[in-house]
Amino acid sequence: MRTKTETNIQLGHGGGGLLTREFLDRHVVPRFATGPLEGLPDGATLPALENGIIFSTDSFVVHPMFFPGGNIGDLAVHGTVNDVAVSGGIPRWLSLGMILEEGIEQDVVGRVLDSVAEAAADCGVQVVTGDTKVVPRGLCDGMYLNTAGIGERMPEFDLGAARLQTGDVILASGTLGDHGMAVMAAREGIEMAGGPVSDTGPVHRLVQAARPFATEVRFMRDPTRGGVAAVLNELVEDAPLGIILQEDDLPWSTGARAIAETLGFDLLHSACEGRMLMACAPDVAGLILDAWRAIPEGNGATAVGAVTNDDAGRVLLETCMGGRRLVDVPQGELLPRIC
Amino acid sequence: MRTKTETNIQLGHGGGGLLTREFLDRHVVPRFATGPLEGLPDGATLPALENGIIFSTDSFVVHPMFFPGGNIGDLAVHGTVNDVAVSGGIPRWLSLGMILEEGIEQDVVGRVLDSVAEAAADCGVQVVTGDTKVVPRGLCDGMYLNTAGIGERMPEFDLGAARLQTGDVILASGTLGDHGMAVMAAREGIEMAGGPVSDTGPVHRLVQAARPFATEVRFMRDPTRGGVAAVLNELVEDAPLGIILQEDDLPWSTGARAIAETLGFDLLHSACEGRMLMACAPDVAGLILDAWRAIPEGNGATAVGAVTNDDAGRVLLETCMGGRRLVDVPQGELLPRIC
Repeated sequence: MRTKTETNIQLGHGGGGLLTREFLDRHVVPRFATGPLEGLPDGATLPALENGIIFSTDSFVVHPMFFPGGNIGDLAVHGTVNDVAVSGGIPRWLSLGMILEEGIEQDVVGRVLDSVAEAAADCGVQVVTGDTKVVPRGLCDGMYLNTAGIGERMPEFDLGAARLQTGDVILASGTLGDHGMAVMAAREGIEMAGGPVSDTGPVHRLVQAARPFATEVRFMRDPTRGGVAAVLNELVEDAPLGIILQEDDLPWSTGARAIAETLGFDLLHSACEGRMLMACAPDVAGLILDAWRAIPEGNGATAVGAVTNDDAGRVLLETCMGGRRLVDVPQGELLPRIC
Repeated sequence: MRTKTETNIQLGHGGGGLLTREFLDRHVVPRFATGPLEGLPDGATLPALENGIIFSTDSFVVHPMFFPGGNIGDLAVHGTVNDVAVSGGIPRWLSLGMILEEGIEQDVVGRVLDSVAEAAADCGVQVVTGDTKVVPRGLCDGMYLNTAGIGERMPEFDLGAARLQTGDVILASGTLGDHGMAVMAAREGIEMAGGPVSDTGPVHRLVQAARPFATEVRFMRDPTRGGVAAVLNELVEDAPLGIILQEDDLPWSTGARAIAETLGFDLLHSACEGRMLMACAPDVAGLILDAWRAIPEGNGATAVGAVTNDDAGRVLLETCMGGRRLVDVPQGELLPRIC
């Protein structure tokens, strides 16, 4: 019994009593209990953000928890940091809600929380409040996480689909769809040399790099579930405008393409977790690409398409052969539990 | 198939494609998509809070989802509203992360979200950002929720265990332990006339009522998991002070007491989800009790104990017979999945 207590999570670790204190002292205090989380208060006290607040949340149920390039811990940080960033916020603080399955190893929890701490440090955000629940064996798949994030609004960004104009350029910050393919390959047990590696990572430095051109930026989004296809279709669905993507310009990694072809997926429907799409005025597109390419997160950045006043409400792909095909919205759950 | 699609949640409802849009249009847009959530952006844009921010989060895995007095939806609102309030914040905005089990009925989701919306309206908070994931059948027990909350800091409160002094009075805003006993009774299928009803509810109005006396308030906490025993033990664990509770003064409901006796629980370990404990200077205790009793949430408020300089680090119960017994910290998971 003693060994089991020390190596596996029990229901009591979420019960609010002595075992909860043990859990917090082992996992949370050493990693996070500085500043606002010191003493583990119910709520964190944080300074005012004078320009307003950006607030976002995501839950994470990715399966498997560990995949090439990352795990549920860094994913949970990047997912919310990125939502805050593409909404025009400088990410500052995160909450972390953990739902743990009875019986999961303490070491697994520790490795995930190490990734949370490292990713948070890299993103310049602090985990300032949290919560831990434990559910009986079988009632969650190891671990589910939730993060909510607070960012400081950057007033110079005025973002929205309504600001889109004919001639605007669509930029992508790097290869697309890698995360979805990396998780699918891990889940299916496909191992191949040069296989896909998740792009899980932060985009807030890309947003900062584009900040000098903020007034000419119309829209930013990280293409997660549903991929590029879902984001761009949503962008034009109610607009008198369409989008044409150039197949030749779409940046795919060799690994993601190999898995997509093997499993029969459309990479335009595959999730990224560390890329961003932007629509901006044509006169700043080259400047933003230059700024992006100067930082590691943006070294694969490229222009992938343009906004047109033909084909209102639709996203089209112009193929290498000069043909055009409709880029549709994913219908259902093509890639379950990708994040 | 058609009927099933319409009445039950599928994996695709969390996939980021057309079914996700259907889900949002059916459940989220009509209830929440006004103000910052209009257009369902990835992140909500919110005004500055000049006095600083209080930030808190909780996940909710309560079983059963519906219990006498409430359900997981209002619980998720009250839990975070209360954490923000007892941390000295005026609750303003919530995020809502949903993890749904494949196969759960759309109507059940709708009823829970109705409760979220009603509780939020009652608490004066807005749900401004959210996320929905669906996991395969069996991998969550119907639904898990997470809320994170942002409140405006009230600078006049200066709270903390370190401010506790000998002679301070411990106040309780109403009967204690009802939520835990109501959930346990529902889970065990115990039906009895006059059985326990959850106290799930907001405490932010109690905090507001005490605000004129803020400088004399040392500590506020809603006794959730671990109950009164956990909160008060934590309060004095590192202090040169102790707490003596008067058994005669502890406010129990008849229903909670009946279940506690039937199932063999100590009500001091049972969770509340709509009560608060306060430590304050003796000269304002009566004034705060008067202010609490003037509003519905506080009509059962009473003083339950006092801070002493005997028995450092311990919480004692003085029984009706004049004896004293130690009030211990719950050891493990006495009441699993109570919230």
